[in-house]
Amino acid sequence: MTSADLVSLRRDLHRRPEPAWREFYTTARIVEELESRFDLDELHVGPDAIAEEHRLAVPDDVELTRWYEQARDAGADEAILERLEGGYTGAVAVLERGDGPTVGLRVDIDALPRSESDDPDHLPAAEGFRSEHDGAMHACGHDAHATIGIGVLERIADGEFSGTLKVFFQPAEEIIAGGKAMARSEHIEDVDAMLAVHVGLNHPTGEIVAGVDGFLAVSHLEATFTGEPAHAGGHPEDGRNAVQAMATAVQNLYAIPRNSGGKTRVNAGIAEGGSAANIVPEEARIVAEVRGETTELMEYMRSNARRVLRSAAEMHDCDVEIEPGAEAPSATSDDELVSIVADVAARTDGVDSVLERDDLGGSEDATFLMETVQENGGTACYVGVGTDHPGGHHTSTFDVDEESIGTGIDVLAGAIERIELENH
Amino acid sequence: MTSADLVSLRRDLHRRPEPAWREFYTTARIVEELESRFDLDELHVGPDAIAEEHRLAVPDDVELTRWYEQARDAGADEAILERLEGGYTGAVAVLERGDGPTVGLRVDIDALPRSESDDPDHLPAAEGFRSEHDGAMHACGHDAHATIGIGVLERIADGEFSGTLKVFFQPAEEIIAGGKAMARSEHIEDVDAMLAVHVGLNHPTGEIVAGVDGFLAVSHLEATFTGEPAHAGGHPEDGRNAVQAMATAVQNLYAIPRNSGGKTRVNAGIAEGGSAANIVPEEARIVAEVRGETTELMEYMRSNARRVLRSAAEMHDCDVEIEPGAEAPSATSDDELVSIVADVAARTDGVDSVLERDDLGGSEDATFLMETVQENGGTACYVGVGTDHPGGHHTSTFDVDEESIGTGIDVLAGAIERIELENH
Amino acid sequence: MTSADLVSLRRDLHRRPEPAWREFYTTARIVEELESRFDLDELHVGPDAIAEEHRLAVPDDVELTRWYEQARDAGADEAILERLEGGYTGAVAVLERGDGPTVGLRVDIDALPRSESDDPDHLPAAEGFRSEHDGAMHACGHDAHATIGIGVLERIADGEFSGTLKVFFQPAEEIIAGGKAMARSEHIEDVDAMLAVHVGLNHPTGEIVAGVDGFLAVSHLEATFTGEPAHAGGHPEDGRNAVQAMATAVQNLYAIPRNSGGKTRVNAGIAEGGSAANIVPEEARIVAEVRGETTELMEYMRSNARRVLRSAAEMHDCDVEIEPGAEAPSATSDDELVSIVADVAARTDGVDSVLERDDLGGSEDATFLMETVQENGGTACYVGVGTDHPGGHHTSTFDVDEESIGTGIDVLAGAIERIELENH
Amino acid sequence: MTSADLVSLRRDLHRRPEPAWREFYTTARIVEELESRFDLDELHVGPDAIAEEHRLAVPDDVELTRWYEQARDAGADEAILERLEGGYTGAVAVLERGDGPTVGLRVDIDALPRSESDDPDHLPAAEGFRSEHDGAMHACGHDAHATIGIGVLERIADGEFSGTLKVFFQPAEEIIAGGKAMARSEHIEDVDAMLAVHVGLNHPTGEIVAGVDGFLAVSHLEATFTGEPAHAGGHPEDGRNAVQAMATAVQNLYAIPRNSGGKTRVNAGIAEGGSAANIVPEEARIVAEVRGETTELMEYMRSNARRVLRSAAEMHDCDVEIEPGAEAPSATSDDELVSIVADVAARTDGVDSVLERDDLGGSEDATFLMETVQENGGTACYVGVGTDHPGGHHTSTFDVDEESIGTGIDVLAGAIERIELENH
Repeated sequence: MTSADLVSLRRDLHRRPEPAWREFYTTARIVEELESRFDLDELHVGPDAIAEEHRLAVPDDVELTRWYEQARDAGADEAILERLEGGYTGAVAVLERGDGPTVGLRVDIDALPRSESDDPDHLPAAEGFRSEHDGAMHACGHDAHATIGIGVLERIADGEFSGTLKVFFQPAEEIIAGGKAMARSEHIEDVDAMLAVHVGLNHPTGEIVAGVDGFLAVSHLEATFTGEPAHAGGHPEDGRNAVQAMATAVQNLYAIPRNSGGKTRVNAGIAEGGSAANIVPEEARIVAEVRGETTELMEYMRSNARRVLRSAAEMHDCDVEIEPGAEAPSATSDDELVSIVADVAARTDGVDSVLERDDLGGSEDATFLMETVQENGGTACYVGVGTDHPGGHHTSTFDVDEESIGTGIDVLAGAIERIELENH
Repeated sequence: MTSADLVSLRRDLHRRPEPAWREFYTTARIVEELESRFDLDELHVGPDAIAEEHRLAVPDDVELTRWYEQARDAGADEAILERLEGGYTGAVAVLERGDGPTVGLRVDIDALPRSESDDPDHLPAAEGFRSEHDGAMHACGHDAHATIGIGVLERIADGEFSGTLKVFFQPAEEIIAGGKAMARSEHIEDVDAMLAVHVGLNHPTGEIVAGVDGFLAVSHLEATFTGEPAHAGGHPEDGRNAVQAMATAVQNLYAIPRNSGGKTRVNAGIAEGGSAANIVPEEARIVAEVRGETTELMEYMRSNARRVLRSAAEMHDCDVEIEPGAEAPSATSDDELVSIVADVAARTDGVDSVLERDDLGGSEDATFLMETVQENGGTACYVGVGTDHPGGHHTSTFDVDEESIGTGIDVLAGAIERIELENH
Repeated sequence: MTSADLVSLRRDLHRRPEPAWREFYTTARIVEELESRFDLDELHVGPDAIAEEHRLAVPDDVELTRWYEQARDAGADEAILERLEGGYTGAVAVLERGDGPTVGLRVDIDALPRSESDDPDHLPAAEGFRSEHDGAMHACGHDAHATIGIGVLERIADGEFSGTLKVFFQPAEEIIAGGKAMARSEHIEDVDAMLAVHVGLNHPTGEIVAGVDGFLAVSHLEATFTGEPAHAGGHPEDGRNAVQAMATAVQNLYAIPRNSGGKTRVNAGIAEGGSAANIVPEEARIVAEVRGETTELMEYMRSNARRVLRSAAEMHDCDVEIEPGAEAPSATSDDELVSIVADVAARTDGVDSVLERDDLGGSEDATFLMETVQENGGTACYVGVGTDHPGGHHTSTFDVDEESIGTGIDVLAGAIERIELENH
Repeated sequence: MTSADLVSLRRDLHRRPEPAWREFYTTARIVEELESRFDLDELHVGPDAIAEEHRLAVPDDVELTRWYEQARDAGADEAILERLEGGYTGAVAVLERGDGPTVGLRVDIDALPRSESDDPDHLPAAEGFRSEHDGAMHACGHDAHATIGIGVLERIADGEFSGTLKVFFQPAEEIIAGGKAMARSEHIEDVDAMLAVHVGLNHPTGEIVAGVDGFLAVSHLEATFTGEPAHAGGHPEDGRNAVQAMATAVQNLYAIPRNSGGKTRVNAGIAEGGSAANIVPEEARIVAEVRGETTELMEYMRSNARRVLRSAAEMHDCDVEIEPGAEAPSATSDDELVSIVADVAARTDGVDSVLERDDLGGSEDATFLMETVQENGGTACYVGVGTDHPGGHHTSTFDVDEESIGTGIDVLAGAIERIELENH
């Protein structure tokens, strides 16, 4: 693919941002591109790409149908779309090029539920590839990630690599809901080395980070409190107040003790309940998340949070249901791959600066894939590809420097080849 | 008006329920009815019926326009509708019949924001006058109240009464937002005796309550907390957490000390904030109400509630805006009128049982009109007209026994005539 | 007894104030007085005066021994003292004077754990009968009550009364811990009419209240939270924080919903825990009370309070023990006795003013005796005997106007005689 | 000094443990020892050893007098004692031995307010040097520290060292209240290199830690809430509830947001208020501490804690006074000194194992002295001297292996000599 091809593909995806499990157009477009460009040995699409029972937080049918139809209206291939029905988005592409090691590359493809700037200073607006989907935007560069995934496949297909390459086009990263389903699929079982990639992260074009670390393990919890309504003036004693339960829980969630084992986090990001000033609130809910520097620390927070939620309900004589939400473990890049990536990057055109290891401080569900490969005896490395981005991640003016797409492809393809060499 | 006329009018209003400040069809229909039936001395409509600056909790223009157009589409008189634009619903009808005392009668006309049952056992459903407005319902009998108001005017117009009768068709009672605007209008200034009426209240058809008491003074407060968002995993310390402020406030609102002076109430009926699991919540709000057996006790609760809301915001470094919400005082019926009503009721056909005084235990903004008249040296009495109601007030199967409409007219018209006699 | 005798006895008791279950000197002195003055038919002392298993909140042996020895040192009769060992204070004196009704009179005899003023303006200080027991004081007039009890016995013994009089000299009223034990004893079983008496209550000398009402039912709860200590800097996660449990409980105790059935109260009067700034608190406790206008309302508060305490413990992974504390029901005086007392009082020398019924607004465990008699089909009345008191009840300058002791005896003896007459 | 001398001195101090600012016997004994053993160039005692205005948390006169007299009774030199009056304990000893660098050594001398085990398995009990002061114990090895300080002085006095040695015998470390006063004194101004020492810390005899790190900056806060009492049954609305303020503060203190900048801690170690079940609590207090991995993080916690305390008071209409409590900064050992200590230790008899740097995880006010020297351009190092200790630090069975006292002296004296050599 020429630079122009890469830019054109990325911009097409940018114009059609689709949030978690709704990446119908995006998946179809990737599949079309793959099928038209090279002769893959395997291409697993939709339900075939994942372990179905591990999908988390899938939207309801009304929502899925709306996005499905929008994808069709935008010209996505109907035959491909049919394979994605029910929110089975994503794909795994496999190239077999000899008996060397199996290398995995994970790229995520989903967008965010936010509006994109229409400021003329915002390049996508100025050049006509701004989001055409109201309230959705590629504000974290996953359009570039998908493009890089295809670019790397092509480079390897055309090169000297003697082994197997699997590219995981993963849906639903933004809500940490898709990584587990790919990590539990059979496709990962024979992977010897797993790479994951992210552009930006406050690193400029020309900088490569070999080994992004510091991912916090994370888990979401959604608690629904159910009490009993009552007229607040006439018979307050007949109520069982779900908002009191919610408030007690919020206060005590934030007060879970700090842990000397490392970083922990907790947030009651949404807390809401009640229906009218004069009704003792019958229902309330909290959407919370907990994090930990290690999976164990996250679990410390989660078991404390569950106890807080349950006893807050009991305190106000309410029932509570706690839904198991999305989650991801922590992960650390292996030294061996960090060295390879750093070394390759240092020799790559367009790379001015190489960092070995840097802390992210957030969460990411690529860690599921990294962890699985590591548990199977393989290695993993998360690679940062610097890109000048005018607005911050997740803001309405985020954009990528398209120059960095090619650089990312060069570094990753180079690293994949080197992994093969070092394993022979 | 014949019984059939009364039933027909009530059913027409029932089919067109309109919540607070949106009673466009209802007001237009009342005005048409009044103008067609008798020669009123004065008819004040919309802005002329109230003290405009005292309207509370008026919906926004989008909402008002929607209901306005719906009223027009339903066939309301366009000339009348124009006088109501901007949510200026309600009317005051005046009959002058001599130099006796001025008696006021207050009837409320608004509906509730809830759906009506379509169960075939629900009479309005069975007989085809169920609500035609989705999500709105006359579930508290104000359709009957409006009808009684017109019926009383007619009875007095046709009778021996020598004085002035003013009927206040009041909007927005359900959100205690319309009473103040009528109580502050000039129309109330010369009223010597004020009657207010309510059907049902768990009293059966044939029972009259002379002097419903125990109205709690009430005040609504809407607090909006504003903090600062932050990534809950990456930089929790950068947030100023509006949901923590909200939760602290909820806990402490309910914990305002009880008062030996009498009944108090508090409810955080709606409490909600935050946008996503991983964002430190930037905004939250509480819609609360406080009540007291006396206006002073309500004010004790209100000033405590305000302090709690302010210091909860400060505790979490948030700002808070507290909107002055709807409110109503407490009130007590005067012995003199209680006796008159009881005595008249006892002699009225269709009345089997008369109670002197009964406790309501809720709130009602007729108290504004009662209080104003009492402060001006006049007297007031709240009259309950029993009616068999299959479902409870505010539930989807509430209905009135139409028999009681005539009984209510008889008792109130009789009481008005007696008031005149006793004042001469 | 002459006035001088009454004053002398009262002052002797005043000098020797003894708190709940420690009334060793007081009981011995009363018994001596009774035995020396008249020929009682029965005199039940200590364990014989009560149902032992219903004593509440008895102090530990060290404390009991200290007061026991102090009483002996002060000259109390050793033979009587021995019958009181183990904190079995109090007595029931019985006069049988014919086959008329059995009338009970309950007087309480305990003091308060507070210091008495030594201001020369404070009469007991000026006249040398100030408390000789550090940290204890008759600051609520029970010294006068005991004196009245003996005076009434003498008056009845010398008069025309034809029936049985039982005077209950009750210990431990101040901590509402002695009433139940007397109410469950056999002595109350045949009582037809029960009187109880209190001096003062902000009524002046010369005023009698026939029927003090408004006693709130009350129950104490003492909760002890036990967690796990930990170094707050080094290993906060190892702690199970009893102070967090306590704080959560306090907040939610006060937030128990108000009840439309009547007055309710809650207070976490003592809340304390922890040992040092740098230790996660291992232990904490709350001493709380709940009250209700009726016993049922108190029980509503109590069951809610228990649930709050238990779930607050669970929330912070602590254990909690909730001790059943002292308690008393509510009670109302019967009309029949109210009339008798009012009528007798109005004819008594020294009485200027008679009130029928007045609200106390606190609690008192005479209600146990009243309730038991009423449940057995008898009647009860709580009588207020006004007395000018310079300082308020429970303050260090409280004192009684000794004039009112004689007036109280006159009214009560008169009422007892009248009860007999009206029952024949 | 022979080993026997060291053991004898340490046991004498062990038998006379004295908590913060009460080290009268201890200081006198140290001064006697110093004066009798060698010819110091300067010996600053009591007020001369510190910057008086920086003493924190000094006990009241009653308490000071009690310990002062106890020290005198135990045979402390009266002339020395007089210089310590008012709790001015501690001393600074100065040896001048040439124009080389000035090296400081800080040893702390106070004991803990806890009882010592009398179990025969506890060596001090078995061998007769168990604490003779009820409720006080050297449970953290400061008796060994003081002994080491004297031993090092002697070793340097007798050796080749050409420079100045200052030993800071610091009082009041356990409550982090004495370090600041020594760090602000003039004696520290010319110190080029500062060493501090601690025995044990879970390291066995024979192990040396060159560079104990991870001290958390810490600050104590004592908040006193003052409200208004009221009868909880009669007039709850008259109260201003200090326990509610306290509980609200506790809940929100623990909920101060975690900080991505590093470790933070908070603990409401003591929380207590109220006087009786039936009184609305008038007073309450919280003794809290906050910590941070850096001084800045501690200040983040402290300013949040202050805001929480203030607004919790305001919420319940109470006043609050927040006393500035003890505090200490964080500190890190300098590489240069770490290397010297490690190197010297490796060559010292009795040392089996040397760790370079280890995390403490608690707080310590030697950091004030370290920070001051570092700010003045010098270097600092905190040295751990392993010692087998049967019970944990701060427990009743803590004891030191006296063998390690000599080892500590050897390592520290060796390091001081080496510092001089490397600076020439």
